Amino acid sequence: MDLELVTIGTELLLGFTIDTNAAHLGRALASVGARVVRRTTVGDEGTTIGDAVRQALGRTGFVIATGGLGPTRDDVTKKVVADLFGAPLEVDRAYLEVLRARFARLGRAMPAINRSQAEVPRGAVVLPNRWGTAPGLWLEGPPGTVVMLPGVPREMQGLLEHEVLPRVQSRISGAGRPAVVTASRTLRTTGIAESALAERIGGLEDGMAPATLAYLPGVDGVDLRLTVWNLPADLANRTLADRADLLRPALGTHLYGEGDADLAAVVLSLLRDQRLTLAVAESCTGGLLGARLTAVPGSSDVVVGGVVAYANAVKTAHLGVSVEVLQREGAVSEPTVRAMARNVAQRFGTRAGIAVTGIAGPGGGTPEKPVGTVWIAAVLEDRQEAVQRRFPGDREDVRRRSAQAALDLMRRLLQGQPA
Amino acid sequence: MDLELVTIGTELLLGFTIDTNAAHLGRALASVGARVVRRTTVGDEGTTIGDAVRQALGRTGFVIATGGLGPTRDDVTKKVVADLFGAPLEVDRAYLEVLRARFARLGRAMPAINRSQAEVPRGAVVLPNRWGTAPGLWLEGPPGTVVMLPGVPREMQGLLEHEVLPRVQSRISGAGRPAVVTASRTLRTTGIAESALAERIGGLEDGMAPATLAYLPGVDGVDLRLTVWNLPADLANRTLADRADLLRPALGTHLYGEGDADLAAVVLSLLRDQRLTLAVAESCTGGLLGARLTAVPGSSDVVVGGVVAYANAVKTAHLGVSVEVLQREGAVSEPTVRAMARNVAQRFGTRAGIAVTGIAGPGGGTPEKPVGTVWIAAVLEDRQEAVQRRFPGDREDVRRRSAQAALDLMRRLLQGQPA
Repeated sequence: MDLELVTIGTELLLGFTIDTNAAHLGRALASVGARVVRRTTVGDEGTTIGDAVRQALGRTGFVIATGGLGPTRDDVTKKVVADLFGAPLEVDRAYLEVLRARFARLGRAMPAINRSQAEVPRGAVVLPNRWGTAPGLWLEGPPGTVVMLPGVPREMQGLLEHEVLPRVQSRISGAGRPAVVTASRTLRTTGIAESALAERIGGLEDGMAPATLAYLPGVDGVDLRLTVWNLPADLANRTLADRADLLRPALGTHLYGEGDADLAAVVLSLLRDQRLTLAVAESCTGGLLGARLTAVPGSSDVVVGGVVAYANAVKTAHLGVSVEVLQREGAVSEPTVRAMARNVAQRFGTRAGIAVTGIAGPGGGTPEKPVGTVWIAAVLEDRQEAVQRRFPGDREDVRRRSAQAALDLMRRLLQGQPA
Repeated sequence: MDLELVTIGTELLLGFTIDTNAAHLGRALASVGARVVRRTTVGDEGTTIGDAVRQALGRTGFVIATGGLGPTRDDVTKKVVADLFGAPLEVDRAYLEVLRARFARLGRAMPAINRSQAEVPRGAVVLPNRWGTAPGLWLEGPPGTVVMLPGVPREMQGLLEHEVLPRVQSRISGAGRPAVVTASRTLRTTGIAESALAERIGGLEDGMAPATLAYLPGVDGVDLRLTVWNLPADLANRTLADRADLLRPALGTHLYGEGDADLAAVVLSLLRDQRLTLAVAESCTGGLLGARLTAVPGSSDVVVGGVVAYANAVKTAHLGVSVEVLQREGAVSEPTVRAMARNVAQRFGTRAGIAVTGIAGPGGGTPEKPVGTVWIAAVLEDRQEAVQRRFPGDREDVRRRSAQAALDLMRRLLQGQPA
C-alpha cells in the first residue's frame, strides 16, 4: 500500500522546527507494510495545503497530514480538507465533552478558543487524543482517504500507534494481498567505537544479505541496524532473527540490548532480579545519571536516591571523601570516585552504588586531565570497579557519555563481565 | 524570491534518516531573503524525482535539490535533471582533475566509480565541493533554475554557504529590488497554557502585521515567534523589536527570556548577580533539575549540589523531613516540600534552595493526589514559596514540566514576582 505524507507548518519550511514526525511516520508505516512514496511540506496557508493534499490524493488516494490542528488562527488544516471533501465542519458533541472533562481534570474551565477543536468535518471518524486537545481525524470520501494528525510529536505518535496503524493494517489485510513489509532490527552496543566494531564484524557482513547492515553511531554507543526490504512479514522476521544471531557473538560484552532498549532499564532490571537497591553519587553529570535511572517507570523500588556533589565541600560533607584525598589526588581521581561510590551506598543503605566525577568542560581541563577525563566507579556488595575514560565532544556529549558509561560499568559488574 | 526544495533519498521516506538538511536550508535561505514555499521529499527513483523537480519548477522556477549525487547506482538526480533540461551529461575535465588530486592527497588512486561524479549536464556551473567528492551543480535553462547539492550535511552546508547563498543573494539584488529578508524573534513563556496566552494576547494579534505571530507550545512552555517576511533587513529588525515591545506586557511575569534562552541559565545568572549559591532536593525529578542546572557551562560557581531523595527514608535521613510529616501529610505535600527546600539549603550551606516532590506516574496516583500532582518549593534567604501543580502528560512530561516549574518558581522569587 502506497501513501503520501503532507506535513504542515511554516516553521518546518523556515527550518525553525526539524520534521522528526516525518521520520517517525515513515518507520512506523513501513513496519506494517505501508510505503511512504512522497512527502510534501507546506506552510500554514490554506490554498497551498489544499493544493498539496489534492495532488497527493491524486497520486496515491491515501494521505496522512500532520500539523495545523491547534486552536489558533494559523491552524487551518481541518477547514481546508473539509472543503476538499465538500464536508461541512460540525461540532462533535461527544468530543466536546471529552475536551471539557480534560480541562476539568486539570481543574480549569475550557477556554472558548478550544471549542473549535471539537469541530470535525461531517463523516470523519474522530480519533481520540489522550495526549492533547486536538483530535485526530480519519476522513474517507470520493477524493480518497485523508488522516489528519496533530503536529506535536507526542500526540502524533500516540494517535499513530493506537488509532492509525491498526486501521492501516486492517486495510492492507482486507485488500487480500499478502503484506510485504520493510522491517528492521537493532542491536545496541556501547563502549566500543564504530571502526572497532566494523573490524570485529568484518567478513560477517557478506552473510547478512538479503538484510542490509547499517552502523548508527551516537553519543550513547553504536547501534547496528539490520533491515530487510519488501518481504512477507514472517520471512522478514525470520531473516532478521537469523542475521541477528549471526551478528551477536561478534559484539561480545558490548551488546546491552535490542530495539529501543535503554541501558538504565537494563541495569534496573538486573538489580531488581537480585533484590538490590541503588544509590548514586554524581559530580560532572550533576543529576543526569539519577535522571536517566528514574526516567524508567517503576524505578522507585530500586533507586533510593543519591547525592549531587558538584562542589568539593559537598564531596567531603555528604560523601565522606577526605580533604586529604581531594587535595592529593584531585576531585577527578580513582580514590575520589571509589570513595564516592562506596560511601553513597553505605550512607544511603544500599548494596549497590555508582559514582561519576570528571571534567565536562568547556573550562577546567589541564594537560594531565584534559576536558573529557572522567572517573567512574561501581560498587556491588563486596565488589567494586573503577575505570577512567577520556570522552570526545562538547560538555553535553561528555556528560551523556559519562552517564552511559557509568550505567554500563554497573551492568558489567551485575553480569560478571570485565569492566 | 520564492523557491522550492526537493530532498531526495529513500532513507528519508523510510524515516531512517531525519531530514536536518531541510531545516538548515530553510533558515539559511530565509536569512538572505529567499523563501522556501514548499518542500518535497522523494525516494531514489528517477521518474518520481523528475516529476517532483518539474512540478516545483512549474510553481516557482527555482529549485534546490539535495541528495542522489553520490557515485553509486541509486544516485540518479544528475541524470534526471539533465534530461529535464535536455542537456547531455559530459565529463568536466577540470573537475575530474580536482577529484584525482583529492584522492592523490589521501594517498589513493581514484576508484573508477568516482569518475561519474565529474560528469555534469552541459551548461551547468560546477560548484566545487571541498568537503567531499560530489560537486554541486547550478543549472539554468528554459525550465528554470535547479541547484543540485549532495545530501551529506557537512558537504551540503559548505556548498550552501560558500557557493549557493552568495549567488542567491546577488540574484536577488541583481533583480534591482533591495535585498529583503525573512527574520524572526522568539519570546519564551512558561507556566501558562497556549489558550490562556492567546486570550491575553487577543486583540494585539491584529497589531502584529506585517509580522506574523506563531504559538509554539512545548513541554517547557509556550514560545511566541514573531516573523517578518521579505522586508529590507533594517526594517525587518525594527519591526520585530517594535512588535516584541507591544507583545511583552501581555505576557507579564510568564516571559522568562528571548531567542534560545534557557530558564536554567536565567536562574543561574540571577543567582550569580546576587552572589548566591544553590542546592536542590529532588524526589520525582530524580536528578533532572540538577542535570538541567549543571548542563549550563560555568554553573559550578552557583550550584554546590543536592540530594536525590527518591525513597522516603532518604527524605528523612538526608533532608530532615520528619517521619511524622511524611506519615500525616504524605511525601507529596506542602510541609514535605518546604522542609526539603529549607533543609537542603541549610545542610549544603547555601542561601538558595529548590525542592520538588510529586507523582510522575504511571503508578502511584490516588483520587486526592492523581498522577501529575507536584509540590514545588523555593527558598531564598528568609523568603520561601511553595506551589502545587497538576501537570498533564506522561511520566517524562510530568518530570520535565516539574523541573521547568521549579526553575520558574526560583526565578520568580529572585525577581520579586508572585509565585
